[in-house]
Formats: sequence, C-alpha cells, structure tokens
Amino acid sequence: MFRARVRMEVLRELVGVVSTLVPEVKIVISPEGLEAKAVDPSHVAMLVVRLKKEAFEEFNGEPTEIGLDLEKVREVLQLARPGEVLEINYDAPKSRLVVSVGKLSRSMSVVDPQGMSDPKVPSVNPTAKVSLRIEDLRQGIRGSESISDHVTLSLDPEGFALHSEGENDRVDLRLPKDSLLNLETSEPTRSMYPLDFFSNMVKSIVTAETVNLALGNQYPLKLDFTLASGNGDGEFLLAPRVEED
Amino acid sequence: MFRARVRMEVLRELVGVVSTLVPEVKIVISPEGLEAKAVDPSHVAMLVVRLKKEAFEEFNGEPTEIGLDLEKVREVLQLARPGEVLEINYDAPKSRLVVSVGKLSRSMSVVDPQGMSDPKVPSVNPTAKVSLRIEDLRQGIRGSESISDHVTLSLDPEGFALHSEGENDRVDLRLPKDSLLNLETSEPTRSMYPLDFFSNMVKSIVTAETVNLALGNQYPLKLDFTLASGNGDGEFLLAPRVEED
Amino acid sequence: MFRARVRMEVLRELVGVVSTLVPEVKIVISPEGLEAKAVDPSHVAMLVVRLKKEAFEEFNGEPTEIGLDLEKVREVLQLARPGEVLEINYDAPKSRLVVSVGKLSRSMSVVDPQGMSDPKVPSVNPTAKVSLRIEDLRQGIRGSESISDHVTLSLDPEGFALHSEGENDRVDLRLPKDSLLNLETSEPTRSMYPLDFFSNMVKSIVTAETVNLALGNQYPLKLDFTLASGNGDGEFLLAPRVEED
Repeated sequence: MFRARVRMEVLRELVGVVSTLVPEVKIVISPEGLEAKAVDPSHVAMLVVRLKKEAFEEFNGEPTEIGLDLEKVREVLQLARPGEVLEINYDAPKSRLVVSVGKLSRSMSVVDPQGMSDPKVPSVNPTAKVSLRIEDLRQGIRGSESISDHVTLSLDPEGFALHSEGENDRVDLRLPKDSLLNLETSEPTRSMYPLDFFSNMVKSIVTAETVNLALGNQYPLKLDFTLASGNGDGEFLLAPRVEED
Repeated sequence: MFRARVRMEVLRELVGVVSTLVPEVKIVISPEGLEAKAVDPSHVAMLVVRLKKEAFEEFNGEPTEIGLDLEKVREVLQLARPGEVLEINYDAPKSRLVVSVGKLSRSMSVVDPQGMSDPKVPSVNPTAKVSLRIEDLRQGIRGSESISDHVTLSLDPEGFALHSEGENDRVDLRLPKDSLLNLETSEPTRSMYPLDFFSNMVKSIVTAETVNLALGNQYPLKLDFTLASGNGDGEFLLAPRVEED
Repeated sequence: MFRARVRMEVLRELVGVVSTLVPEVKIVISPEGLEAKAVDPSHVAMLVVRLKKEAFEEFNGEPTEIGLDLEKVREVLQLARPGEVLEINYDAPKSRLVVSVGKLSRSMSVVDPQGMSDPKVPSVNPTAKVSLRIEDLRQGIRGSESISDHVTLSLDPEGFALHSEGENDRVDLRLPKDSLLNLETSEPTRSMYPLDFFSNMVKSIVTAETVNLALGNQYPLKLDFTLASGNGDGEFLLAPRVEED
C-alpha cells in the first residue's frame, strides 16, 4: 500500500514535465520520495525527475513501483481547484490507483511496471555551464518558433546566446555575462538542438525561476531545474542536432 | 401585441436551459408570465420552464404564443453587455419579433406556433429525493466525462452518490447525508442516465446554487431548479438508461 | 540607415490596420514620419495611413522605403509585453530590418520596394458626413454579421443608420442626431458596402474612440480615424456594393 496527499500544483508540474517525453511512466516510490525516468520513443531526449517526500502533505507506505497513465492523472487534476490537495491511494496487489479530490474519487488501473522499460541514463558531462532566468529562455524560444525547427545555444566568457536561423530571417537572444546568474566556460562552446523538445521542456517547468544549462560542442544538453518549490529536482538530457555547415 | 424588457442574464439563462433539448420552442405568454415546454427529438428528455412576470423589468400585453428560434435570440444576446436590459416587442399579426439592445434592434421572423408540437408532460413521481449543491454535481459530471457516456445516481439513507464506470476506470462522487440539503428515501434507490443530457442540463443552470433531484429504481429522473433569482423555475425529466448486468 | 524606437501598442495598431488589406506594404520614411498606402487585391478597398515622428520614442535617419512583410513584424510583436518599446534598425544597403524587443532581436529580409505597386488614391469626395463613437459602429457590425454579408449605411438630417437584411431577419442600428458628434447632410443619402471589409476596417482601429464617415448615394465610403493617440491618422476608402432593388 502507498498513500500520499499532495497539492494539485505539485502533481500537475510533475505530470507536465514527464508528459513532454512519454504518455506513461514508471514511478518508483521509496521512503524518501519518488523518482521517475523517461526517454522519448526516438531516444532524442531523456528525463530524471525526483520529488522528496517533503513535497507532499503526506507521504506514507512501502517502496513500490507504479506504472502511471499520465493522461488519466491529468483528467483528475482538471477537477481540482487551485491550492486543493489530492489524495492518492495505491493498492499494489489489486494494481488499482485511486486519486481523490474533494468528494470525488477516480479509481484507475495502472500499467504493469514490469513491462515498462527502465531507461539507462548515459554519463554525460558537458563542461560549459550557465544559469539563467527561465523567462529569458522562454522569450528566445518563442521568438525562434516562427523561424526554424532547431535552435543553437552558444556560451563564451562574455555571455550566453540562443539563435535560430531561417532561410531569410534570424532570431538572436543575447544575454551578456552580467544578466546571467552563473557562467562557467573556458572557451567558446556551441551546439544545435531540436526546438520542439527544447521548447516543451522549458515550458513544462512552472515553478522554477532559474535553470542551469550545461553543453559542449555538438554535445548533449543537460538542463537542470527544481520543482515543487525546491522539494524536487529534474534533469533533462537532449541530444544535439548535427549542424550542416 | 406583447412587449417586455428583461435583463440579459435572465433571457440568456432561459435560452440556455431550453437549448439543451431543442433549437426552437413555443413560448406561451400569459398575464402571469411565460412558460415553455420542450422534448428532445429522441424523447429521452423533457423540460417545463416558467418565468414569472416579476423576472422582467417590464411585462405587458395579451396572452399569445411565440415560436422562437433560439439561435437568433442568442445572437442578439451576444451584443448585450452584462446587466444590460433588452427590449422585446412581438407583433402577432405580422409574426415579427423585434429584440432591441441599446440602439440596435433585430427584427426576426418567428416560427408558426400552430405547427409546433405541444409536449405532454408525463406523470412521473419518483419517491427518492435529494437536494444538493449544484457545484458538487458539476464536479461529479466533469469527472465522469472522461470515463463513460452514462452515469449512475444512487440514494440511500446514508447519502447520495454518483458514479461512472469505464472499462478499467471508475469515478465516484459520494455526498454523505450531512453534506446534503435534504434527503428523503426509505430504501436504496439507483438508476443510470445518459451523461450527455444530464451534463447539459446541469451546466445550463446558471443562477441556482442548489437543485432537487428525484429518482426511482430504473425510473425517470426529475431535476427541479429555480432561475431568474427565484422568479422562475424549471423541471427537467430524463429517461433512465437500462443497465445491463 | 533608419532607426526608431516605438511602443508595441503603436506598432501593433499600424500593422493591424494595414493587414486588413494586404500582407506586405511599402513604408515610406521621411523626416516627418512614415506613410503607407495599400489597396486590396480585388481593388475594393484602399488605405492611406501616416504616423508622425511624434508617435515614436525615437525616430532617426534618412528618407527611405521599406517593403515590409507584416506577418514577420506581428511575430516579433507577440514577444513584447504591454508597454514595452521595440527598437527598429534598417540597413538599406543590406536590405535587412532588425526589430528588437528586450534582449531578443529578429533580423528579417525585406521586400524590394521597387517591385511593389504604388496605389494611386482616387479623388473621392462624398458630401454626407457623420462623426460617431466607434463603439456604436462596432455593435451594429457585430449584429449584422449573423444576418448578411453586406451592410447599408444611411444618413439624413435626423441621424445615422446602419442596417443589414437577411431573408427573414433584419438588424437596424439607429443613431439619432443627438447621439452623434457631428452630422452634415442636406438630403437623405445611402449606400451599401461589403460587410467583411467594413468590419475588418472598424475592428482594426484600436485607440480612436470616434471615427468620421463620409458617403454618397451608391458612392465610395471614406472612413477617417486617428491612431497612436492622435500622432497618426488613417483613411480607408471602400467601394459601394451595387444594390439590386
């Protein structure tokens, strides 16, 4: 048995983040909280996300694994008012998950976690790092969406840049060093990434005001963020898109 | 001749309630107010709705019948601002209805009321009764919509329940006795109803905060409500959907 | 080189007004401000619009002509917050226009202004004139849209009227003399116009609270308005639609 109570905003952000990559996910429950890993079907992007038990109003029960259909959870979330607390009860032997909001409860079948793949997170260590306001990143992404389906991120000791090029047009977001929260790079570094994944990732992050990016030359992107007001954290990995010069 | 002036919110709720069943309706005008009856084409649901003359800012004229195209009235309503008063003038010999809002007036042909059916309201006396907050009912309906196309209502001396079952999932709304405004039932009673009609009915009720339901075992549902801040009332009847057990 | 800084609301209204007729426009820059002329592909409607340099936060550079793709400007506008100031830089030799908002800049190719037609504005002098609140006009237009695809405007010494007729229905907006700001007509005058153009024109005017209409019997309509809080003005011309009586 597993039982938890959680504010709707916390559960909604978790569901939103994971939904950028997969429609179903295996949730691993431990005494300290929960963890989920996901890789998108094309193996371009990957996610590890954790919520500490402190992110919950109540968090009780034995370690277990739950195969969750995210769309069903989203449907229950739409019944909750802002600030409302949902109750989650999982009956492992029966493979039934019950999510309650107010006087309403939804009982749902779960996916057999045995049959779900367990993504191996590759060891990726990009060395150029930047911390920036997510709002700036969002503006750069929105500007790029009418231009291209990929985006180039660049770091050098002077600052961070995002740009996107179409046939005749180009969008540039330039954040000089003093508008960044942190910048670590010894040499100019740049890599191109698919915009749809990058955009969905960044848009799924709701409560964090800053994110950490780490990249290398034509190397995977690592995007670190917190959720649940710091009582959780996540890490997206995104494969580079090879530039044709 | 018939002439009335009415706040847009009152007319809009009347149009909304009747539109759940029919696109055109015969409005019967008497010295006390107006009445409309409607039955949906599949004869699954029925409505009787009345507005007292007190629901109007002005209500004058001879008894008459008007065959109303509800979509046309809705179009005029969309031109009115909240709180605005519409003026209605009906010229029976010419069969013209003029609805005015501000400096704009729309003159529309009416449907010949002679050619419109006059639904006979069957004598239905379900004995299990409950009064509840419409907000609770709405949450149960919204939760059910992703699960099934029908919903089961149950009453017993302990309280009221609404549930909906899909292949693997189930939604339950349970309102114990102390969260109800009134409960009258001697024995457990339950019946299943088509969700689309039930949902449209409940959503069309805008000003009432509570509704009265009466049901029997596999028996029609009676849903009583007020409109126009108590200066009107309505009664929906809804045929049960036979349960296959 | 040309360089300007402008509040997003001013640029957005300019783009909105011109977009009612064409997707691309030639902007003529002079020391006093800018001007654009447009005629729709079917030659039914025409526009001349001017923004004085006072409409801008900054307005500098040599007289030039810029062939503008309005959709691209609209995309940048969607990145700006209310009240935000955009920076425009035009490099004539390179035919590149750069529009910046905050830390983001979009560089776009422009259309060669040599290849763009230069509409000749016909000499049209309708003698019946009226000034009215645009809000009244909008209500008449919205009421007409469910009735017909054309609208008739009438002026006589008593006032202004707009009406639209369908097969069975009719919408009338009547503005007596005392609800108008100005009225100049010696005899009854009326003309019918295509509703889609008239509607788009009136809806594109955002900041002006009043507009001036001038018309003749079955004669083009002239619609004068201000934009940029009086630091700009525009004039739409609209060909009449011949009435079949």
